[in-house]
Amino acid sequence: MTYCIAIALKEGLVLTSDSRTNAGIDQVSTYSKMARFETAPDRKIIVLSAGNLATSQAVIEQLKRDIIEQNRVNLNTSNYLSDAADYIGDVLSTRIRRHSEDQKSNFAPESTLLMAGQISGQAPQAFLIYPQGNHITTSTETPYLQIGESKYGKPVLDRFVKMDTSLADAATCALISMDSTMKSNVSVGPPIEVLIYTKDSLRFDQHYRFNEDNAFLQNLRHEWSNKLYQAFTEMPRIPEHFSTL
Amino acid sequence: MTYCIAIALKEGLVLTSDSRTNAGIDQVSTYSKMARFETAPDRKIIVLSAGNLATSQAVIEQLKRDIIEQNRVNLNTSNYLSDAADYIGDVLSTRIRRHSEDQKSNFAPESTLLMAGQISGQAPQAFLIYPQGNHITTSTETPYLQIGESKYGKPVLDRFVKMDTSLADAATCALISMDSTMKSNVSVGPPIEVLIYTKDSLRFDQHYRFNEDNAFLQNLRHEWSNKLYQAFTEMPRIPEHFSTL
Repeated sequence: MTYCIAIALKEGLVLTSDSRTNAGIDQVSTYSKMARFETAPDRKIIVLSAGNLATSQAVIEQLKRDIIEQNRVNLNTSNYLSDAADYIGDVLSTRIRRHSEDQKSNFAPESTLLMAGQISGQAPQAFLIYPQGNHITTSTETPYLQIGESKYGKPVLDRFVKMDTSLADAATCALISMDSTMKSNVSVGPPIEVLIYTKDSLRFDQHYRFNEDNAFLQNLRHEWSNKLYQAFTEMPRIPEHFSTL
Repeated sequence: MTYCIAIALKEGLVLTSDSRTNAGIDQVSTYSKMARFETAPDRKIIVLSAGNLATSQAVIEQLKRDIIEQNRVNLNTSNYLSDAADYIGDVLSTRIRRHSEDQKSNFAPESTLLMAGQISGQAPQAFLIYPQGNHITTSTETPYLQIGESKYGKPVLDRFVKMDTSLADAATCALISMDSTMKSNVSVGPPIEVLIYTKDSLRFDQHYRFNEDNAFLQNLRHEWSNKLYQAFTEMPRIPEHFSTL
């Protein structure tokens, strides 16, 4: 399984991903799910992936080759990020269709992607690209997108991430969301990658990779657990006289 | 959708359920999902249901009739709760099979049940009964079971519910778990029912039903939100010098 988050805020972008992949519980490996594209000076693009690893790798490979071979459509030729999302969606759905034809009973070639970034002069944006190739973006009310094992970590994002949340706060929230997910699903695991992109910087200068034994990550998980427990002990209990029987 | 929790602790049982049912988003109704069986003096049994409402109602109806008609096997004849779980599983899977044969493309007759209670002289127990009729119970490490929309509210149960948690604490935790779920999925909603059963009491004397505008429930949701936010603001932020780029 996988868990990736893309948050698009007024100040910029926060991307987070875990690194655990599995083909059955007896075949677990570590792969980065965060691909950075820094080829043209006027844009920065990141792609996060969940689902079939072969499909994800094939898509990333194709995106890179289209740039190197200067094909007619590639990540550097798109005038808007939504055009880039269309293009990535085409690459993704074409690759999935190729394997859908000889599909065996339990074989699932689907991948889902998050694409985020900025083209100079435009706002930073994030997109969720479905296996069918279509995509959605964030809204003022819901400034984040998730792929993979998304439910365990959603409540904390709903509570704390608004459009005007700072990048540092959003990064902490994303790590807490990842922590909740790792606690409930062993197939999501470290290293955890975090990329913070400041609007209009056109630089990827804040990229973090936290291993399981990283002191900061361990402290954050420990602190959150303690603070939640403290909060829980202070919560009201149901008064017995409320009983409806 | 639905969300139900059954917690089996040293001190007794805590059962929680929402009351929203929907057959498509344009057909939303309110039904209790908590059925109490108090027919024999030596036992107390509660059944919670998620899934197809027609199936759930048919199963509850059959369980009641088997008692009234004093059929050879009913909830009062089981010597152990696990026998009762077998019997309920048979009723459930038989009902589902009846409708599986004339199954249309999108029709899903499956229901999943939680059964909990105590037979005098034995420990209180909880079971999750699958549509196939088989069942699992709790363990020392995982003293709770969930059915329906279970993921949003799981992290908080994992953090706070242990075998020796008090019934009052477990009830508060279950309400917080329900709150997290209601915030993330509109198809789970009030009234929220909570039943607290004290071991060896053989009485259902703590049953609570919280409507949306109930002051206690509103205060609890508000307090939890505030405390979480406070905890979040006190969490460490990623130091910039950690960057791996």
